[in-house]
Amino acid sequence: MANIQEIARLAGVSTATVSRVINKHGYVSDLTRQKVLGIIEELDYVPNANAISLKKGETRQIGIITISFSPIIINFVRAFTLFAEKNGFIITLFITNGEPEKELIALEMLKRKQLDAIVCLIRSNEWDVIESYARYGPIVIWQRLQNKNLPSVFMEQFHAYWTGLEYLHSKGYRKILSIYPMSKGLNTKERIRAHSEFVKKHNLMAYSFPHFEDKTLVRDGEKLAKWWVSQEVRPDAIFCANDEVAAGLMTALRRLGFSIPGDLGIMGFDNTEVAHLLDITTIDYPIDQQAENAFIILHNKLNNIKNKLNTLTYRLVERRST
Amino acid sequence: MANIQEIARLAGVSTATVSRVINKHGYVSDLTRQKVLGIIEELDYVPNANAISLKKGETRQIGIITISFSPIIINFVRAFTLFAEKNGFIITLFITNGEPEKELIALEMLKRKQLDAIVCLIRSNEWDVIESYARYGPIVIWQRLQNKNLPSVFMEQFHAYWTGLEYLHSKGYRKILSIYPMSKGLNTKERIRAHSEFVKKHNLMAYSFPHFEDKTLVRDGEKLAKWWVSQEVRPDAIFCANDEVAAGLMTALRRLGFSIPGDLGIMGFDNTEVAHLLDITTIDYPIDQQAENAFIILHNKLNNIKNKLNTLTYRLVERRST
Repeated sequence: MANIQEIARLAGVSTATVSRVINKHGYVSDLTRQKVLGIIEELDYVPNANAISLKKGETRQIGIITISFSPIIINFVRAFTLFAEKNGFIITLFITNGEPEKELIALEMLKRKQLDAIVCLIRSNEWDVIESYARYGPIVIWQRLQNKNLPSVFMEQFHAYWTGLEYLHSKGYRKILSIYPMSKGLNTKERIRAHSEFVKKHNLMAYSFPHFEDKTLVRDGEKLAKWWVSQEVRPDAIFCANDEVAAGLMTALRRLGFSIPGDLGIMGFDNTEVAHLLDITTIDYPIDQQAENAFIILHNKLNNIKNKLNTLTYRLVERRST
Repeated sequence: MANIQEIARLAGVSTATVSRVINKHGYVSDLTRQKVLGIIEELDYVPNANAISLKKGETRQIGIITISFSPIIINFVRAFTLFAEKNGFIITLFITNGEPEKELIALEMLKRKQLDAIVCLIRSNEWDVIESYARYGPIVIWQRLQNKNLPSVFMEQFHAYWTGLEYLHSKGYRKILSIYPMSKGLNTKERIRAHSEFVKKHNLMAYSFPHFEDKTLVRDGEKLAKWWVSQEVRPDAIFCANDEVAAGLMTALRRLGFSIPGDLGIMGFDNTEVAHLLDITTIDYPIDQQAENAFIILHNKLNNIKNKLNTLTYRLVERRST
């Protein structure tokens, strides 16, 4: 392949001049520019972008790390990618399947300057491992964490979850079962805390059900339906970890001939498309604005600026499942 | 930051030796290796991977181009990413929103050796533009195209669509309306051809309805429900472009008090999760195996090998919407 020396020789100019033409930076007379461009065209010269980014020290690539694709994560990735692309960045996607080594590939790329920044949605390594890479480039995280090296776009779930529980209470439900998402997550802890305070406040201690955690899929909701049917004392409402669990639960019970909300009130979380389709009452999660905040945080850090973040607020969406 | 010359000087060895240690390639005595690694550790030296890939001429990055995220595309991206990661590649994602310039960013990265290969799911540029980049690295496409420079993993849709239509006929439906996906797509042309031959074969010409194209979203199905309700002579079955349209149509009609399949038979395409949830009869699309084929084609080209592709077959999944 042609190189910059060869182009300079054929054009009768210095390599510095060729470089100025290629990088569109610095003064070159029109005549010289045309001459150099003509030779570049003739030789089909392709500037190697890895060499370019070596010099500029940036790749304009941001990595997104996640364990898997759930509807809410897909919405985040879609929104973040559009914001990043609008600002001239491209997205590298790492689906780790929960394997720490795969996550380390992304973190090592940040260290080696192959990525400018990282968004970590669901992690696979311990936090201190991830934090140890923060000195190589900005890392923003989705989950709840108090750590000055790892800024997070998490939303406080206690109040939102509490609002959902109070809404169910206002509709007359008293035997409310909560189904929680990932057991390691701090969001889960906040939801458990909200449920426990709610039960105390309304003196609902008499109705205690088993503890369900790590339920995030349609098929988890379907299994839950079987459990519900088999109980002597059944919950009268189930507040699901997300809309997918609610959808699986609702459709499985309807197949068995039960009526929703007649026999059971069902509430989801996130307000994804399936909640709209199946008319499921849920908590709206402003994922697009959250994704934009993640981008703003990284962009601010990379450019040493202070653009303002969106204010994120939950919203109860009442539909026909409660 | 420390560089390789400094490490060599401190270790009292040549830069070539340091390079052999860093790249884990070529003989270095254990003693020397330990010495060099000790100094690297001490200086917190990070080899710049862009410099490494300059030398090796590969980045082990594959770009995926799509216009947007639909459930079937998400399933493709997920499956492809897992295959690629298992083989030591990482995925860069380009959501073009239909803007040709965004697609060109990916194609230019292939040209500049920042990507080893590209999977183009839904294109935004004309085919000849995309083809002109095929000489810089392998490009595999999802859509139907006969072009030796652009191998495709497309599946012939005529037969699958025909099978769906014949199934509806066998269930007694005679006024069948087909709703087609993207108007520019060759898949749409194949479905139109299948429908037209089917109508002729069974002499169903008397029932003609408007032509619906470019319908791929839940809200398209919801609008279709309004259209159906407003008709004097209504179709007795609708074969939708995909499961999302079918889901929107079905849930909107049920909200209006109609019975599915009592008042209308509904059939989807793709067998995504929503078809399972809503009990929609559909055509199963082996997207995981198709994604694996896309990876095998690229991998074969990059390594000049000939691993065998999966045989892809459609399958009718009968559920309760017909």
